[in-house]
Amino acid sequence: MGNDLPSRIRIIEEGPREGFQSEPPGIPTAAKVRLIEALATTGLTEIACCSFVDPRRLPQMADAEAIAAAVRRRPGVAYRGLWLNGAGFDRARSTTLDLRPIVFASASATFGERNNGRSPTGMIEEQRRLIARYQAAGLKVEAAYVFTAFGCNYEGDIAVAAVVERVAALVDVCAEAGERPPLAVLCDTVGAANPLLVERLIGAVRERWPDLAIGLHLHDTRGLGLANAMAGLRLGVTHFESSCAGLGGCPFAGNRAAAGNIATEDLAFLCAEIGVATGLDLEALIAAATLAEEIVGHPLPGRTMKGGSLARFRSQATINLD
Amino acid sequence: MGNDLPSRIRIIEEGPREGFQSEPPGIPTAAKVRLIEALATTGLTEIACCSFVDPRRLPQMADAEAIAAAVRRRPGVAYRGLWLNGAGFDRARSTTLDLRPIVFASASATFGERNNGRSPTGMIEEQRRLIARYQAAGLKVEAAYVFTAFGCNYEGDIAVAAVVERVAALVDVCAEAGERPPLAVLCDTVGAANPLLVERLIGAVRERWPDLAIGLHLHDTRGLGLANAMAGLRLGVTHFESSCAGLGGCPFAGNRAAAGNIATEDLAFLCAEIGVATGLDLEALIAAATLAEEIVGHPLPGRTMKGGSLARFRSQATINLD
Repeated sequence: MGNDLPSRIRIIEEGPREGFQSEPPGIPTAAKVRLIEALATTGLTEIACCSFVDPRRLPQMADAEAIAAAVRRRPGVAYRGLWLNGAGFDRARSTTLDLRPIVFASASATFGERNNGRSPTGMIEEQRRLIARYQAAGLKVEAAYVFTAFGCNYEGDIAVAAVVERVAALVDVCAEAGERPPLAVLCDTVGAANPLLVERLIGAVRERWPDLAIGLHLHDTRGLGLANAMAGLRLGVTHFESSCAGLGGCPFAGNRAAAGNIATEDLAFLCAEIGVATGLDLEALIAAATLAEEIVGHPLPGRTMKGGSLARFRSQATINLD
Repeated sequence: MGNDLPSRIRIIEEGPREGFQSEPPGIPTAAKVRLIEALATTGLTEIACCSFVDPRRLPQMADAEAIAAAVRRRPGVAYRGLWLNGAGFDRARSTTLDLRPIVFASASATFGERNNGRSPTGMIEEQRRLIARYQAAGLKVEAAYVFTAFGCNYEGDIAVAAVVERVAALVDVCAEAGERPPLAVLCDTVGAANPLLVERLIGAVRERWPDLAIGLHLHDTRGLGLANAMAGLRLGVTHFESSCAGLGGCPFAGNRAAAGNIATEDLAFLCAEIGVATGLDLEALIAAATLAEEIVGHPLPGRTMKGGSLARFRSQATINLD
């Protein structure tokens, strides 16, 4: 291709988890399962199916165990659940989902309080307890997440140094237990990132931990989601998180009107056009996105699902030339 | 800012023209005028108000003269109309609009036939006649436009060489008349561009005409609009065309379901965040975008109009620190 982009990236599908928890309660478990099963036919190898969080706080995910039990599993696909404390981890372990142990912190202290009910120090203590549970279960930490890494609706701009400090706290708490996370995921929880900030933040984290892979969890609140993804791709980022049809948002981020995650099919379209392999079938992704829109019953922000891929225009063109 | 981005760009607002001609007929002239007047309060200095095209082909613009007559003009703002042939130019001249003489070609021959009813050769002949009319009126060509420069819904991919050839044909027909267009605008008429193609195309045109300024007219059909704009900004492009709220699309592009132009307020947000001056008031743009949505009566694709600017979160943050 004559460029320095990665040859291949990995996309974790967040739609069934982050998307459905951002919608009003009442989406039937069977509909959620239908979307997960549709997504599993697209080439996606990791699908976040549900969250094991307190159903009093997030009634949309009260059926987490039911989802896990109902999904027909497809070989080669990891079906994930998210937890944010020990009780959630225990619930996840009681299912047959594929466990992905993570540690996490929030660059914004206020967001950490609202989303996780913890101070920065309390959140690190929580990670220490989580790592102990992971180790007791024979599991290792697979990723360190930093929420609100690009800005916060409560605290406004977030200093790059504050993000580096949170990554350091997570690396340190893992090191105490003899571990090292292989991946740090920088989350634009509220859609405040821009391409230059993506570059600065990745640069700062790489400068300090050259061996740490970096992932991006991006939202498209203000239309820059794919521009930010492109900035990450140009820097060789190979781990992305996105949502089918652009489902998503965070119910505790203080801005309910905003668009959700970057759309998986838009990211897959970008990658296909610039020659970065994803292993994804764009037409199957568009079909899944259309199903997601049917399930939620309102328009979702994904673009490619409406504009369509370019394949049909290219094939029509061939026919025209005959 | 420590980067090589342009310090300032110019944005031409296309919403009232390209946007309203993509909507079903019936939007009252007064509503169109209200949007134009709202846009004129945002810092925009050029607003495309209407098209002087055959009302049998485009009944949405049958009120072009009425729009031109009704708009209350604000000093410092150029109010533009578009024409694509001599009859349209004569209609535009009969109004008080600010004339911006352009020449144009289509990289896709099929699109040229459908949109302009002309073969590639016929289209250049049309430009020759237009330049003669411009000169008779004491006007010079201000820009050369290439439609479908990044792909076509009828012809699929468009070779970079085909675009360079169309720019050359336009430069040549101007040169015959002793003129040289100062600007070439590359139009992603159908939303097929990607950031690497933006770079390749700009590189190819600059290689041949180093003194020719390049503009980008981008659509967000598949979610890459702002990523493409960012690619242009990184290469120093200072002329952009966009639409309030993402209004737009092209009625003759063969894909009605697609999103429209990149949203002016999303582009303005990007520029503000990366330190590129636009002279635009983002909050006023968001208000205009909201008005546009009220006028068309259905959701429009702009993101920042829904997510809001970051200013309120930054100011809340300051209050929180007190």
